[in-house]
Amino acid sequence: MRILSGIQPSGKLHIGNYFGAMRQHLQLQADNEGFYFIADYHALTTGPDPAELKQGSLDVAMDYIALGLDTEKTVFWRQSDVPQVTELAWILSCITPMGLLQRCTSYKDKVANGLSPNHGLFAYPVLQAADILIFDSNLVPVGADQKQHIEVTRDIAIRFNNRYGETFVVPREHILDSVAVVPGLDGRKMSKSYDNTIEIFESEKSVRKKVMRIVTDSTPVEDPKDPDTCNVFAMLSSLPRPRS
Amino acid sequence: MRILSGIQPSGKLHIGNYFGAMRQHLQLQADNEGFYFIADYHALTTGPDPAELKQGSLDVAMDYIALGLDTEKTVFWRQSDVPQVTELAWILSCITPMGLLQRCTSYKDKVANGLSPNHGLFAYPVLQAADILIFDSNLVPVGADQKQHIEVTRDIAIRFNNRYGETFVVPREHILDSVAVVPGLDGRKMSKSYDNTIEIFESEKSVRKKVMRIVTDSTPVEDPKDPDTCNVFAMLSSLPRPRS
Repeated sequence: MRILSGIQPSGKLHIGNYFGAMRQHLQLQADNEGFYFIADYHALTTGPDPAELKQGSLDVAMDYIALGLDTEKTVFWRQSDVPQVTELAWILSCITPMGLLQRCTSYKDKVANGLSPNHGLFAYPVLQAADILIFDSNLVPVGADQKQHIEVTRDIAIRFNNRYGETFVVPREHILDSVAVVPGLDGRKMSKSYDNTIEIFESEKSVRKKVMRIVTDSTPVEDPKDPDTCNVFAMLSSLPRPRS
Repeated sequence: MRILSGIQPSGKLHIGNYFGAMRQHLQLQADNEGFYFIADYHALTTGPDPAELKQGSLDVAMDYIALGLDTEKTVFWRQSDVPQVTELAWILSCITPMGLLQRCTSYKDKVANGLSPNHGLFAYPVLQAADILIFDSNLVPVGADQKQHIEVTRDIAIRFNNRYGETFVVPREHILDSVAVVPGLDGRKMSKSYDNTIEIFESEKSVRKKVMRIVTDSTPVEDPKDPDTCNVFAMLSSLPRPRS
């Protein structure tokens, strides 16, 4: 199976990224042909600072390779280094009905959450379709919120094949386990935008300081905690157990 | 001045094309730096037959060169041979407000006229902006109906320059004379879609046959005609007078 996944170049990765997607990416390498790329063209839709975007792409690449991305086996690249993808995105645009994009909820959600309604944000699913289809990908591991985009890709591939003959592999989505949502320091989902993360390669001193900041309830330190509500326990239970 | 113009690859050119735009393109070569390209990526928005599109691009190239496009002086290429244009189109998309595209009347007009509302048709002005801006064009000769698209290009260029520093030349439009509308065989504007054209390099026999079909009024052949209403006269008056 050829598995393709785009990774947001959001800088140094945190343990929420690791348990949310990265660990699965790394595991999927073993029995599949992995095609993983750093989606810097997609990142442009949120108007990042140019220097941060560049550094963020490098940081993500370093963390993936450090944690076991096998560059001998898995194809790993930066999206903007392959101009054929934007060429294909234009070609696909010309057979993509406007209605298909207008029905995408993620555009509306992003705008509702304060992102500026730019055309890149709207056209995002077409670039994503080009990313997937140009490499004959079979399987695309995504979060449940990205399922609709994979359906758009399938729809575009089927239209193209019907009109111009069998050209593209019609891919399937592979929904990543949602059990692996890691709470952040404040108990909300760990996310850079909440500033509640612990980086994977953070210094011991800095990790220690952050762990001491984890929000807990008012149960005294000595008392037993409820594992269902305790953030520290939830975070700890994501981590591999030390070998006995 | 650097002048840029995209030419629709609609196949063999007719005398309406010649007097409508081509003659001006060829004249503008003399005192300017001409950048002319065959807009095959734009043509995809109307869903052409692939073989016809390919042949149409070659036919347009042949006619332009035969009529005096100076390939030593003027840069002449096919749009799809320069992948950097679709790359820039994506980058520009990410700073193009949706409202700017939604206000473009040509998209609505095309859909009202029966074209399928695909995303390429909607995104057309962004690709056009990339065409123009990537080559630092100063002047873009267009018909009056394309004026709004050049305003979109200017708007995108100014936004980009404001946000990332002076990068693009902000171009101006050069509206082509509308006096040069040539009537077709049936008296309507000469256009391939009306099937009322005379090709520039058509055989004498075929031209003769078509001229005999030109619609006139019921004035007998021997009687004088009114030059203001006679199609034959209107067509003839576009043509250069023979040297005496």
